[in-house]
Formats: sequence, C-alpha cells, structure tokens
Amino acid sequence: MSTSTPPRLAAAMDAWRLSIGPENVIDDPATLALTGTATYAVDQPVPAVIRPSTTIEVSQCLRIATENGIHVYPISRGMNWGYGSKVPVESNCVVMDLGRMNRILDYDVEMGTVTVEPGVTFHQLQDLLEEHGSKHFMAAPGTSPHASCIGNALDRGWGFGPYSDRFDYSAGMEVVLPDGEVVETGNARFRGSRSAHLFKWGNGPYVDGIFTQSNFGVVTRMTFFVAETPPIFASYVYKIAGDAKLPALMDALRELKMRHIMRTNFKVQSFYRLFMERQQFPAGQEDFLLTPEAVAEAKQKWGIDDWNGFGALYCWSDAQYAAEREIVEQVLRPHVDALVFLDADVMARKDAIKDEVLEETGFHLEQILDRFWVNTRLIGVARGKGVSGAYFRKSTPVPDELDLDRDRVGFLWVDPILPLRGSDVRDAADLAGQIMKHHGFEPNLGFNCVTERAIFMTISLVFDREREGDDARAMRCAKELAQRMSAEGFTLGRVANGLMSVLDHAQPASLDLQHRIKEALDPAGILSPGRYEVPPSF
Amino acid sequence: MSTSTPPRLAAAMDAWRLSIGPENVIDDPATLALTGTATYAVDQPVPAVIRPSTTIEVSQCLRIATENGIHVYPISRGMNWGYGSKVPVESNCVVMDLGRMNRILDYDVEMGTVTVEPGVTFHQLQDLLEEHGSKHFMAAPGTSPHASCIGNALDRGWGFGPYSDRFDYSAGMEVVLPDGEVVETGNARFRGSRSAHLFKWGNGPYVDGIFTQSNFGVVTRMTFFVAETPPIFASYVYKIAGDAKLPALMDALRELKMRHIMRTNFKVQSFYRLFMERQQFPAGQEDFLLTPEAVAEAKQKWGIDDWNGFGALYCWSDAQYAAEREIVEQVLRPHVDALVFLDADVMARKDAIKDEVLEETGFHLEQILDRFWVNTRLIGVARGKGVSGAYFRKSTPVPDELDLDRDRVGFLWVDPILPLRGSDVRDAADLAGQIMKHHGFEPNLGFNCVTERAIFMTISLVFDREREGDDARAMRCAKELAQRMSAEGFTLGRVANGLMSVLDHAQPASLDLQHRIKEALDPAGILSPGRYEVPPSF
Repeated sequence: MSTSTPPRLAAAMDAWRLSIGPENVIDDPATLALTGTATYAVDQPVPAVIRPSTTIEVSQCLRIATENGIHVYPISRGMNWGYGSKVPVESNCVVMDLGRMNRILDYDVEMGTVTVEPGVTFHQLQDLLEEHGSKHFMAAPGTSPHASCIGNALDRGWGFGPYSDRFDYSAGMEVVLPDGEVVETGNARFRGSRSAHLFKWGNGPYVDGIFTQSNFGVVTRMTFFVAETPPIFASYVYKIAGDAKLPALMDALRELKMRHIMRTNFKVQSFYRLFMERQQFPAGQEDFLLTPEAVAEAKQKWGIDDWNGFGALYCWSDAQYAAEREIVEQVLRPHVDALVFLDADVMARKDAIKDEVLEETGFHLEQILDRFWVNTRLIGVARGKGVSGAYFRKSTPVPDELDLDRDRVGFLWVDPILPLRGSDVRDAADLAGQIMKHHGFEPNLGFNCVTERAIFMTISLVFDREREGDDARAMRCAKELAQRMSAEGFTLGRVANGLMSVLDHAQPASLDLQHRIKEALDPAGILSPGRYEVPPSF
Repeated sequence: MSTSTPPRLAAAMDAWRLSIGPENVIDDPATLALTGTATYAVDQPVPAVIRPSTTIEVSQCLRIATENGIHVYPISRGMNWGYGSKVPVESNCVVMDLGRMNRILDYDVEMGTVTVEPGVTFHQLQDLLEEHGSKHFMAAPGTSPHASCIGNALDRGWGFGPYSDRFDYSAGMEVVLPDGEVVETGNARFRGSRSAHLFKWGNGPYVDGIFTQSNFGVVTRMTFFVAETPPIFASYVYKIAGDAKLPALMDALRELKMRHIMRTNFKVQSFYRLFMERQQFPAGQEDFLLTPEAVAEAKQKWGIDDWNGFGALYCWSDAQYAAEREIVEQVLRPHVDALVFLDADVMARKDAIKDEVLEETGFHLEQILDRFWVNTRLIGVARGKGVSGAYFRKSTPVPDELDLDRDRVGFLWVDPILPLRGSDVRDAADLAGQIMKHHGFEPNLGFNCVTERAIFMTISLVFDREREGDDARAMRCAKELAQRMSAEGFTLGRVANGLMSVLDHAQPASLDLQHRIKEALDPAGILSPGRYEVPPSF
C-alpha cells in the first residue's frame, strides 16, 4: 500500500483483507490505472479494488466501508463503455468488482426465468440456454456480450427481442444496503413464496425501481424473464434515402408497435452508425465527413442508406407469420425505399435469389442474413463483438476481443428519450446532427424503440483518445448535446459519468425526494456518491 | 363538532376549514358512520372527512395534519369494496376524500394516453374516449365502473384487455408527501420534457412503485396508457366439467400467454363465482352448498360449468384473426369441454345458429354475446354493475346502482398470487376450497391471468352482514385463508384492511427497508398508518 494512504482507508483495507482475503484487496498501480480508465477523459483516481465473492462478503465489505467512511463504487463486469466504464463518478471511491459473483443460480425451464449474480454475462447465459436446447432466449445486449446482465438492467439498459426493456422483465432482487443489511424484494421477501421469481410487484410498496439508476444499494441477485424461442422466426430490414421520409416512417413504426405486431424493439440507424460498424476511417480521407462520392460508394458497398432499420416477427404458425408479415408490409412499404424479409425460405434459396435481391433493393443478402437472421441478437445471440464501430477512428485494426478502455478508444453515449412520433424524431435528429457537426463529429445516430410510446435515441461520439484534443472536444460536444437536447424536452434516459450536471433540469422537490431516500438508506453517504445526482459544485 | 374532539384535532379542523372551506370539512354523524362502514366488520371510527379539490389544497391539508399530528387516510372514490371500502386501517384517521379532484387533464389521442386526477372514474373515462370516437380503450375494472382509475392502480388492481396490469401501463405521477411537498416523478419531473406522459422509468431512480400499496404519499395525478381499439375484436368462452382438467388447462393458457397470442388477461372462474353473478341465493335452499340436482339445473340454465373461462383476440386483419384463432383452438380444444368464438360473424348470424350452439356447447349465445362481445369489459366497457354477485346472500334484490357499504352486503377478497402453472393452481384451489367449505362458504374462486408467469387468484367471501354471526365467520375464514395460503407459498398480492398481519411472513430486513423509507418521507407518521404494514400488536 502506498505510504500516503489515508489512515481510515488503511484501516478499511486491513479489515477487507481479513474479510475477503488479501488477494481480493488490490492496489497495484497497473490495476488501479486500468480501473480508472474510461472511453473518454476522466480524472477520478481509484485508491483500491475489492472483489467480494458472496453476498455475505459484499455485506461485510459495505459494513466496513460505512464504519470507516470510505466511498465504494460497485461494478458488475465494468463494461459500461461509453457511460464511464469501471470509473466511479467521484474521486477516491474504492471500486467493488462483483465479477467473482458469476453463478447462474437457477433456470426455471418450465416458467422461463433465470436467476443470476451480478458477474453473470450475456454470453455465459446464452451458453446455458443453448445447453438446455435453446427453449428460451435472453434479450441480447447492444454492447459487448461479456457485459453483466444485472449491470445492464440496473442502468436500465435494453436488449433485443420481445423482452427488450430488460428491467421491466425482472422479478425479485437481493440487495445489500450500505450498512450491510441484506434485503430481498418482491415476493422473494416471503420465505417459500412460489411466485418469488415470477411476479415482479410482490406485496406492499414496489421498491425494486429505486435500485436502478441510483446509489441506494448493491444488487447481488436478480431474476430475469427469458422469452420462449418461437418455431418461426423472421426478421426484416429496410432503408430510406434522405431525411424527408424519416418522420412518416417513425409514425408507421409506432403503428406496428402499438398493435403488438412488432413485439421486438426496433432500431433505425443513420448512415454513419452503420458505416462505422462496417469499416474504419478511410485512409487518405481529409474531412471528418465523407465526400458525397465516398458516401455513395459506401452505401453501395455495404448495402446501406441514409436511414436503416430492422424488426422481427416471432410466430407460432405459418398462417400467423403470413398474416403478420402482410401487415408489416402494408404499413411499412409506403414509407421505405427497400424492404426485405429474412426467413427460413429465403435462407434456403439465398444463392438463387441473391442477385435479384441486390438489384431490387441494394441489400447484400448474405450479409443481412448473417446479421439479422442467423447470428442475430434479435433471437438472443450474445456472441458478436458488440460496439466494434467505436474503433472507427483507431489506426490499429479492430481486435478480436474488444477492450475499449485498454485500447484507448474514444466513445461516449448521449441518450435522450423521445416520443415515438415522427415530428419529435425529426426535431431531435436535426438538433443532434447540427451540434455534432459543429464539434466535428459525424451524425452517428440510432433510434431504439424499447417501449410503445417512447424511444431511446442513441447519439454516439466516436473518436481516438490518442489524438490530441479529442478527449476535450468529445466532452464539450457531449455536454452541449446533453444540455441542449434536455432543454428541448428530449430528457436523457441514461446519463454517462461526467454528464450528471444535466440532472439539474429536474424539479427540486424530486431531487429532494431522492436525497431523502438516500439519507435513509445510506446515512454515511458511502455508496457511489454522485451517481445520478446533481454534482454539488453545479 | 363533538365536545369531546381532542384539542389537536380541533385545531387541525379549524385550519382545514380556513384552507378548503367549512363545507369541505365534514363531521356530521351520518357521513362519518357511512365512511366508517365497509363490506365486513371494522371498528375504526372516522373523526372527520376532508375534501380538498386541488393539489395545493391536498398539500395544505397534509401540512396541517403533520403540524398537528393528525392521521390522514386518503381515498379516491372510496370503492375499495372487499378490501376495506373507505375505512382507514387504524382508528382515528381523518379520511381525505379526493372525489372532487375529478378532472381528466389530458387525452393525447395520437399517443394513446390519458392523464387524470384521483377522482376520475372508469365510467367517466369511457365517456370521454367514446366522445372522441372510441379510438382507444382503458382497461375496465372488475369492480364498479364508478371506482377511481388512480385508486385502483395504486392498490395494483388490474383490469381487462391488453393493458390489464394497470400500474405497469402508467407513466409519471404527481405525489404530495406528508409534509406537503409536491413531487413529480418519471420524466414529468423535467419541465418541458416531451416524454413526461410517455416513458415510465424517467431518469434516475424509478420511484413510482413505492407509492403503490404503501402509505408514503398522496398521488394527485397519473398518466395511463390506453390501448388502441382494433378493427377486429373477437372473444372466446370455454368451460370444463369437474376439476381434473383444470391443471392442464392452466398450462395451456400459459402457453398462449407466453406466446403473446393471448394479449388480454384471462379469467377462469368457478361455478359458484358465475352462479352468484347470475342469481341470488335460491329461496328454500337449506345448505350453503347447492344440492347436486340444483347445481345441474343451474349449469344448464346459465350455460356454465365447474370452471369457466374467457379470452380475447385483438387483430388488424382477417388473416391475423384466422391465424390466431386457429392457434387458440389448437392449444385449448384438447383441454376444454366447450369452446365458442364470438365475433362479428357470429353476431350477425346469432339467430340462425343459437340453437345449434346451445345443443353443442350448452352456451346460451345471446347471453355470452352480450357479456363477452357487445358489452364486454374486454374492450373497455366500464358501465356494468360490477360485483353484483356480492348481493347473493341478500334477501333484497340487486339494486340498479350497487352500494355494498350502504346495503350491508358482506364481501371480502383474499387474493393470493400463484405461478401460472397447473399444479400450483390445483394446490391453491384445493386448499382454498377446503378452508372455505369448513367455514360455510361456497368455493367462489377466480384465476386472473394478469402477467405471463403469475396470476391473481381471487377468493371471494360473500355473506349478509345482517345475518347474526356472519361478520365474525367471514373474518375468521379470511384470516385462515390469508395465513394458510401464505404459508403454502401463495403470497397475497393485495391485502384487505384487517388482514395486514399476514405481512408478518415477510423477511424482517424488507420490513425494515419499508420502515426506513416511511420515516424519511413521513417522519410524523401521519399518513395511513398500518396500510401494508405489520400491525404493531401482532
């Protein structure tokens, strides 16, 4: 330990070593440096990392932290790329790494639920579900498959498929409060309850929600619902040229979503979002925006256009599939320039029809089959690379296993919530594009429909942390996006560390309510200070 | 005011009179007696009723209560029949009647949301939606159409149709805390947020849930999502003789629910539930259970059987309806003795086919068309009588407008949550039936599928409060049901006043968490003491 370690931290570290073993109390400079590294500029040094392996150990560690007044910042797998990675919001927080708690505690095959610890990854869960015959699938994440299911849910991240709104499809938590008390929620708080893992509301006040996007407790167990794998799965991809058709497309998508014809989330993504996922910054390119010729070439090469979307159908009979497909076609055709359905029939005939598909739609059939039908997250495949587009600006190639922190990839998310309505989408796309271009960023935009009425807009800033000035430029752009989008009514749905000051837009009484709950559950204020809180200096 | 009014109450009442007008501070004995009357025996005298008409007035009233240490119990419309009606859980609570706050604040026709005050009833909302062309429908309640939408949602009641789990389909609350602070939740706490009424999670900790089934604040505004009215609506009814087929039927229903073929809730109800809704206790009948001959006669007369169920399809094309109907038939036919679909075609041909339907299925076509296709709650009709079956034991006829409290109807709900699984349903039905018969109650049971994995079982005790000993007998039976069902893992989903001691089954740490939040938000403990709390004497 460094000789400059403050005495209360030293005392806590001694106590932690006794509790969880000295090998799980880490303060070597290399680990601390990596733990303190995000995909954008942060300056919150991490004094130590502790790695409890059980709920009891988490409880002991938090009790020790409370007794010594040491701040603790829990991470599950620490893959919170673009939002702050493993890095605490404030300085001098010990990082509690829950990666050793990686047991899948239960898979109820009959009822379609999995109960997991925070260290369990999407990849790990997919392996288990496949071992059991792929009867069910978990909503796969947009990010790395090695991310934590619980971590993602607690930040109210979303996935692909019918259970996209991940937290909404969970039931029953085990939470360790900052003073070490272990609380169960939902019907899990009733010993022997047969619906402990099946019914989210429980009985009495529904408290699970206060442990999401907050700093009130450490969640050490959660149950997720997994969707039944249908006998007939089909997906569809579509695209449009130019921005003019985007609002009407969005209204059409709302129609499909409201009518439950679209049971998955959908995504509509800008040219640059897809371009970056397919190749790195072209050598010899001068301006940050491609020339019109280069854009045209890329569109043809990758079968993409200015706006690109997909959806999926989950059906239990051929007739149901035919009927739903017809409704999708009727609703979408008038608003898109190309629409292709991907199903078992297309897969079987792919060689025979690929030229025709290319000619008629510009889609490369093998590419879209692989991306949206075979290895697709829409049916739970959590084995891709994740956000490979983040390497767009790197001069080194995209590695097999992404590690954005290690590779000094510049990556920052700003995620406003929009009404699922054409006029709002147009306003938001215009404003975000204008701010991004002003700061020298491509309009890398996505619209992710997770609910029937509101969507996540994902604004992605991609840069190279090795390039002088890029860190500062990205944070300036992100702050302007966060502030101006919020001021226009596009409230953020998830906030990256470093952008918490946007919460100042909230009604003071609501912040006071949050503060009162915080004081009740964490009077010593040791847990994740600053997380989803207005910075005190603001 | 009575001369025996305690001085602090007298001071509060003076302050309330100044705040909301003397006509809205009521203590005439007749009103107090009726307010203190439930559908079963209670002994919690109500010292006064206050009737604020705005959020500001609610805030002032609560502030006055906090300053004077006066307990307040808010009701919306006070139609909480079978759970305690208007009666506070503990004695000496002033009832805050929010019935004057009956404005529909917004109907967003494009996005399908309604924003209402606590006094708004289901009936009132249906009127509004009809005035706008019935583009949407609200999940209609099982109880009186004059019940409050917010009141029902806050007790996590459920309705009919695709948005059955009412609280799940809400976004953004205005809540007055016991000290008078007015808090907005979800994105409503961000001024000008375009998704204030569209996105339930908001940003930061999701707190809405803690204001359901609790006593932390008074909700003065809520937004509900309303479902789009489909061009093709169909329903289906089915029934089975005997108990043997019930478990397999339940597993089949889970299949339909998990696959989203059944987007509404479904109900499967016992013979006695339906019999009581159709006629009162037969004159001359001796035993509380009908003779086998009388049962057989009633089954034929009313077209019902030992277990009776229904569901609905909401479709956007004929092909979709045909496909979904075929799936329902395939899944259900092997498990039911009769199954009839009700749609526009059947309605048109009803006179021609009714004899055939009766002969083949025992269903009286006109009856079921009226109940499940024309005037059905499955598509939002909130104009029926509600729980008319509660009058089963009364010697007076069922009135046009039900008032169970006034009419001294004996009625008590016990609602365990079960896994949506045949074996659990069988266990629960057996245990509940056995306890009910032991206490001289008919097995009046319903299984209400609100979620994909867990269902509400509704056990209904129907009696006549005028009959000597019935009040005590009902409470003995309810307590035994609550305790023994809980002990068997059938945790209650909603708890009637008088049965709160069942919460003693909860893990102590979870009760402590609830207590900590209560202390943080209501340090004076003035709001609805005892609601969803373990009784102190227990």
